[in-house]
Amino acid sequence: MTKAPQHLLGIEELTLAEIRRYLDLGKKIKKELDAGTRKWEILQGSTVVSLFYEASTRTRSSFEMAAKRLGADFIHMNADASTSVSKGETLVDTAKNLEAMNPDFLILRHASSGAPQLLVKHLKIPVINAGDGFHEHPTQALLDALTMEEHFGKVAGLRVTIVGDIAHSRVARSNIHLLKKMGAHVTVCGPPTLLPPDLDGLGVESSYSLEAAIKNADVVMMLRIQFERQNDKQIPSNAEYFRFYGLHRDSVRFLKKTAIIMHPGPLNRGVEISPEVADGANSLILNQVANGVAIRMAVLSILSGGVK
Amino acid sequence: MTKAPQHLLGIEELTLAEIRRYLDLGKKIKKELDAGTRKWEILQGSTVVSLFYEASTRTRSSFEMAAKRLGADFIHMNADASTSVSKGETLVDTAKNLEAMNPDFLILRHASSGAPQLLVKHLKIPVINAGDGFHEHPTQALLDALTMEEHFGKVAGLRVTIVGDIAHSRVARSNIHLLKKMGAHVTVCGPPTLLPPDLDGLGVESSYSLEAAIKNADVVMMLRIQFERQNDKQIPSNAEYFRFYGLHRDSVRFLKKTAIIMHPGPLNRGVEISPEVADGANSLILNQVANGVAIRMAVLSILSGGVK
Amino acid sequence: MTKAPQHLLGIEELTLAEIRRYLDLGKKIKKELDAGTRKWEILQGSTVVSLFYEASTRTRSSFEMAAKRLGADFIHMNADASTSVSKGETLVDTAKNLEAMNPDFLILRHASSGAPQLLVKHLKIPVINAGDGFHEHPTQALLDALTMEEHFGKVAGLRVTIVGDIAHSRVARSNIHLLKKMGAHVTVCGPPTLLPPDLDGLGVESSYSLEAAIKNADVVMMLRIQFERQNDKQIPSNAEYFRFYGLHRDSVRFLKKTAIIMHPGPLNRGVEISPEVADGANSLILNQVANGVAIRMAVLSILSGGVK
Repeated sequence: MTKAPQHLLGIEELTLAEIRRYLDLGKKIKKELDAGTRKWEILQGSTVVSLFYEASTRTRSSFEMAAKRLGADFIHMNADASTSVSKGETLVDTAKNLEAMNPDFLILRHASSGAPQLLVKHLKIPVINAGDGFHEHPTQALLDALTMEEHFGKVAGLRVTIVGDIAHSRVARSNIHLLKKMGAHVTVCGPPTLLPPDLDGLGVESSYSLEAAIKNADVVMMLRIQFERQNDKQIPSNAEYFRFYGLHRDSVRFLKKTAIIMHPGPLNRGVEISPEVADGANSLILNQVANGVAIRMAVLSILSGGVK
Repeated sequence: MTKAPQHLLGIEELTLAEIRRYLDLGKKIKKELDAGTRKWEILQGSTVVSLFYEASTRTRSSFEMAAKRLGADFIHMNADASTSVSKGETLVDTAKNLEAMNPDFLILRHASSGAPQLLVKHLKIPVINAGDGFHEHPTQALLDALTMEEHFGKVAGLRVTIVGDIAHSRVARSNIHLLKKMGAHVTVCGPPTLLPPDLDGLGVESSYSLEAAIKNADVVMMLRIQFERQNDKQIPSNAEYFRFYGLHRDSVRFLKKTAIIMHPGPLNRGVEISPEVADGANSLILNQVANGVAIRMAVLSILSGGVK
Repeated sequence: MTKAPQHLLGIEELTLAEIRRYLDLGKKIKKELDAGTRKWEILQGSTVVSLFYEASTRTRSSFEMAAKRLGADFIHMNADASTSVSKGETLVDTAKNLEAMNPDFLILRHASSGAPQLLVKHLKIPVINAGDGFHEHPTQALLDALTMEEHFGKVAGLRVTIVGDIAHSRVARSNIHLLKKMGAHVTVCGPPTLLPPDLDGLGVESSYSLEAAIKNADVVMMLRIQFERQNDKQIPSNAEYFRFYGLHRDSVRFLKKTAIIMHPGPLNRGVEISPEVADGANSLILNQVANGVAIRMAVLSILSGGVK
């Protein structure tokens, strides 16, 4: 039996058995959600504290929904003008203060890679990484894998192409780790400025050509282009990026009929994806969101020790 | 029997029977609140998501109170720096993402008239308009009608005068629709710059003279003056507005002894209303707030399909 | 028997019996928390509204945790851009509006000394002061006393030294009132610019010398230095303040081995306290935070009238 994990910091350090445990419980919960169950008692009396140093809509509300469906209380702290979080107190001090109030989980989103790894050296309660800098976003990768499994039955053997700003994407990093562990073939694609220099160690193929990268893909995962990149001259213009690396009427013709399209959101319509593709029959973007609640319920349940 | 409505977008499209249904249940719930009931089970297991693109204190907290009293979970998303709501994602995408997490209601406040009408074309869950641009604010009109009924027994036949920035007020529009449907006589009053040009179609009388407009009124509803208007030169100065269109020691002498005074809040004391009038015996301003919770509980209950 | 108090505005106006009641219940609840109890039913069906005009992390989350552990709903309103609280509505109007929605408590944090005293003239529900200007922060003083009692058995006879910006600290004021009533000896210490001119009336000793002030102390309570003070020229520089008034390797040598160190947070490490002291064996800083939840649960319980 797999020993209960204490934290969820990243996919890189997980065994395949640990990943399967999250996915299997996520799948079970998803089925119960689909069957109409809305409330569980597994976290009754528990409190989930989320501490977000970066803006978020869907990740925060997804964790909040997950916690509340499990019966937990949810306390959200945002590092903005309404809190003193940004007023010179260190991350560790803020987190240790929150821990001293005896919550059962701390969910952290932070702009610095490695922030949750720092925290777990100082905290006793489970820490869940909701995105740290350019490093990892493990629940995103798990929900993506659940979405692929729901559609294709299994992830092993799938050809998955990730398109966009690979170098700066924690979603890409977490997905690459997870997909490689599960036996998928991963290709990354983007302009040279947005591909990391150290791709070899990750075991993925890379391509500057969208056509070459997606023509055999079972899954195409489009990443969000950060508008700031344009000012950095890392991409010449949104229009040119869209033309060469966007999914639109012209580029989807390269895809297999059975290929599915994913995106972690929020979408930049007309930058990395066109509306007809985002809303088309092959898009599983909203399934990803639905699976996000199920996976986060699974993660909270397993870390609570309440589920074997 | 009235068929269960799916959304609450505006008063304009409601039948009198639909309005009565909200008012009758609101009145029943108000009585139970007054008798000390604090919790209902009708929305146990449900989740209410509110998505607010405009600042709000009382509408947000009133819906939150209503949802929680009914046993629902409440998740609030504000389109500010703490969320990515404002970072280029379209309203429809944000709403569809939230819907994918399987909440039971979406409450929307938006600066654009028609925003909730746009959403319902894309969503399956009930949408409640908590104010859209200059268009409608239906729960405000319902709580106002409940307040009049509580005081006078019925709305039909009442003479209601609405004073202020009629042209830009969603509160005025929703109230006019509701009051006309219920058989009240409606007069609007304000300086020429703040009265809409197309009043004839609304079936209301209008006057530039406060004295003429309020001397026969049973209800005087004062609207909030937006300070921005002064810069737009639509009102010469707050002081002059107060003198000619404010309710104060001098102007209340025109009122009937039995007239009641209402205001949707927040008050600008000394701009559209003086403190002694706002806090006087004829003011039902705080009754409106109390009725707001009851009406919103009624709206959520009816839209949930849980109440026949 | 002590009559149930209606509000908690400050320590100054409390009798010793009232203080004991909060402390005794806080101690009892703390023991139950330590034994693993997470949920009480005493505020089931109640709603706690918090209205914060100043930034806060720990006070807000501590009250939220306390309310939820007692079974209450918690609605938080922050006076920022997301609410209309700052848009010209008076504090009394905002509070009366919230009261009209029938919550059971109002927790207020405000930059103006006396703001909660103003509110209770207009409200019928219990008001809890979560910090008002330079005036009082009563739950902080109560949790501090609980922390001292947990450690030393009793507060009477303890020698307590408070170091820092005494003149502008509501924490210092509330603690001085409480410690004097409970029979402790209080010394305040800081540079002349940060000590209030009217110390005589408070019954405390004062000193400009840290060594003299702390060498006999049982408790040293360090206050947070506001960075703004440096610009005001009230302290020459953070480095100089740290050297003369900070607790660090050199200055802790003056302390008795049995002395404990407290701080209301958030810490400025390297300004008023060094990391090795803040995290050292004599520091009870995190115990204070844990006791904060217990004390606020006691306050809410007693003000609800549900606890004799």
